Amino acid sequence: MKEAGPRVSASEVAAKSPIITLLTDFGNTDYFVGAVKGAILTINPAARIVDITHEIPAHDVAQAAFMLLAACPTFPPGTIHLAVVDPGVGSSRRALLIRARAQYFIGPDNGIFSYVCERPKIGAVEVFHLNKAKYFRQPVSQTFNGRDVFAPVAAALSNGIQPEQLGTRIPDYIRLPSIVPEVSRKGEIKGRIVHIDRFGNCVTNISQAELSAEMIEAGARLIIRGKIVKSFRNFFAEDTATRDELFGIWGSAGFLEIAAANKSAAKLLKAKRGDAVTIART
Amino acid sequence: MKEAGPRVSASEVAAKSPIITLLTDFGNTDYFVGAVKGAILTINPAARIVDITHEIPAHDVAQAAFMLLAACPTFPPGTIHLAVVDPGVGSSRRALLIRARAQYFIGPDNGIFSYVCERPKIGAVEVFHLNKAKYFRQPVSQTFNGRDVFAPVAAALSNGIQPEQLGTRIPDYIRLPSIVPEVSRKGEIKGRIVHIDRFGNCVTNISQAELSAEMIEAGARLIIRGKIVKSFRNFFAEDTATRDELFGIWGSAGFLEIAAANKSAAKLLKAKRGDAVTIART
Amino acid sequence: MKEAGPRVSASEVAAKSPIITLLTDFGNTDYFVGAVKGAILTINPAARIVDITHEIPAHDVAQAAFMLLAACPTFPPGTIHLAVVDPGVGSSRRALLIRARAQYFIGPDNGIFSYVCERPKIGAVEVFHLNKAKYFRQPVSQTFNGRDVFAPVAAALSNGIQPEQLGTRIPDYIRLPSIVPEVSRKGEIKGRIVHIDRFGNCVTNISQAELSAEMIEAGARLIIRGKIVKSFRNFFAEDTATRDELFGIWGSAGFLEIAAANKSAAKLLKAKRGDAVTIART
Repeated sequence: MKEAGPRVSASEVAAKSPIITLLTDFGNTDYFVGAVKGAILTINPAARIVDITHEIPAHDVAQAAFMLLAACPTFPPGTIHLAVVDPGVGSSRRALLIRARAQYFIGPDNGIFSYVCERPKIGAVEVFHLNKAKYFRQPVSQTFNGRDVFAPVAAALSNGIQPEQLGTRIPDYIRLPSIVPEVSRKGEIKGRIVHIDRFGNCVTNISQAELSAEMIEAGARLIIRGKIVKSFRNFFAEDTATRDELFGIWGSAGFLEIAAANKSAAKLLKAKRGDAVTIART
Repeated sequence: MKEAGPRVSASEVAAKSPIITLLTDFGNTDYFVGAVKGAILTINPAARIVDITHEIPAHDVAQAAFMLLAACPTFPPGTIHLAVVDPGVGSSRRALLIRARAQYFIGPDNGIFSYVCERPKIGAVEVFHLNKAKYFRQPVSQTFNGRDVFAPVAAALSNGIQPEQLGTRIPDYIRLPSIVPEVSRKGEIKGRIVHIDRFGNCVTNISQAELSAEMIEAGARLIIRGKIVKSFRNFFAEDTATRDELFGIWGSAGFLEIAAANKSAAKLLKAKRGDAVTIART
Repeated sequence: MKEAGPRVSASEVAAKSPIITLLTDFGNTDYFVGAVKGAILTINPAARIVDITHEIPAHDVAQAAFMLLAACPTFPPGTIHLAVVDPGVGSSRRALLIRARAQYFIGPDNGIFSYVCERPKIGAVEVFHLNKAKYFRQPVSQTFNGRDVFAPVAAALSNGIQPEQLGTRIPDYIRLPSIVPEVSRKGEIKGRIVHIDRFGNCVTNISQAELSAEMIEAGARLIIRGKIVKSFRNFFAEDTATRDELFGIWGSAGFLEIAAANKSAAKLLKAKRGDAVTIART
């Protein structure tokens, strides 16, 4: 906008206003999200809080892990992702900070970060056990570590406190079953549906690392719930789309999706998360 | 607050932190909104992102067009509205930037901006076809232009890049059927319900440009679904409200609404969007 | 983050970017929330707007009062809470600004602030009747004071206008039935369920002011819907949790909750808000 006048540089603003994203199963009807934001802003009033979603189904760690994997690549280096789906709150499960992909991930040690650390192949992952109670909000509630542990630690990190000060370096963390599909010696790919989006597109865990353009051109067949999907499309609204026809398409999260032109592929297929998806060569 | 101390002026802040609003059908359960925000903040970390809603029914362009019309008047000049309800993503539909009402509107060329350009009568509307790929996020996904085209262009605009640099000026854009009601020579107004809000108020497309205070005082009758509404009220909680009675009222978006005191008029009337609303003189 | 470089101090940022929280029954599907945010940012572009929730059930003032009580303690001094659940909009109900707990509360005079002023025992409460129309957005809609009265007043307050300039000091305000439970001379506590959260935990109005650790250790019994809950737990995911068993736990809002390990206590009990909860000594 030409009327805007002088601006601060992006790096100046980034330095002053670190991004903290939130991804939880707290829902949007309760006070939980507000309480977390207040806890962050009390410690760092300059934090830029960005909601990814709070509508992860309650306790659904794998769903949260996928959402984080799909959302994090657009955020700039240094972004702090707070991800709290935490059925084990109050138990002995650890609180974690992970530095990976030039970003930070803070949340419970229950597998919620296993996809972002696994796919695509990324470099070194540093893991810290958040055990420095001086950075927690006191008293720490036994039921709401999102507010009392993860939020204040994220805020402290955004204030420039180092991961090494916030916790102890540890070698490992809990992982979910791998999101990488199996590929047989014959080149058959055994994947699964990892997400069904609001438009009914069925997102698989199959990426271009497994399924090459050459394989598609050579006539790869996709099999889901006994149906064969032969068409691989480039566009949702391609002119040649025929009514109700299912097709494969490279989706926006980098995975193969099964879609239908302006229809819900999931409804057409009665598909659900976890369903097997196979790619066979012809 | 007296403890606040020295402040930056509003114009200084506005210059540094341009507002980008978001209005989509992405839903709040998916990663889409988070991905769009990350794409904006990567390009302009100082952008002030404001959610209008992400719960437009999937592919419902007319609903989005109305929401934008109702929400945009409170925002300051220079605000950038990103509106993405985009059933044609991936097809040859154009990406648009419109300068109107001293604000900016960015989204697909499918009618989503036709109400803000039509009502109330506004001055010049400048339309640009967003065809400069250097401002897009690469690679551009075929299914998610919200993240890869519209968000980065909005961020570039907020960084001071001119519309003329972002695209090519074009003379026209897709329009929905007009939101202006028909008025017969006898003064009968043929309108329709354009929105039913969460409280069940039925918002029509009839404004004070068609229905004058004199007409109401002279005894205009409102007809909807075969029922005659005779009462035109000033307040939702007016003392004289009798039980269940429907009434007309000037709503907050500047249109005549059909309401019921602390009840859902839509339920009482079994009304839905698109239903005809007629104003007849007595 | 070590790459962050020099930072502004928290107090500098707080001075420039006062927090305004929003808590309403506007829903996330409509244009209402967007319109309120635009109205605030037009008057104070530096305001930091934080959503608590917009999904309070329509017209449910008591629910809003509880959410505000539960969310406000994590926010810093000087925070402005805008709370609008306003079935009486357009009637003679007053618009209020309350200074309490070193924070500000702005909204209708219908009891929405009675819990934050009642519990825990707080110091002086100052109440102002917002009757200075020069701070309103003109023309004031008869149906949307959130946008036209409360938002602009909150923005003016955040700009440094004093409460005394925004309204007239008044001695009292509307109160809901007390949130403090009755305690009989024998020490029996008669409370109620004031909230059921998204995980099905039943939040009571009983705090440690009524129910001491000594009473629990001496064998207090909790009675709800004819069932006796004997167990008082420390953790949601405690190792000893047996299947389906209900237990009492101190929840994150400072109140006794009735919970079940990774189950919905509300479903197990068929409990609803308002149900009586009794604590009897054995």
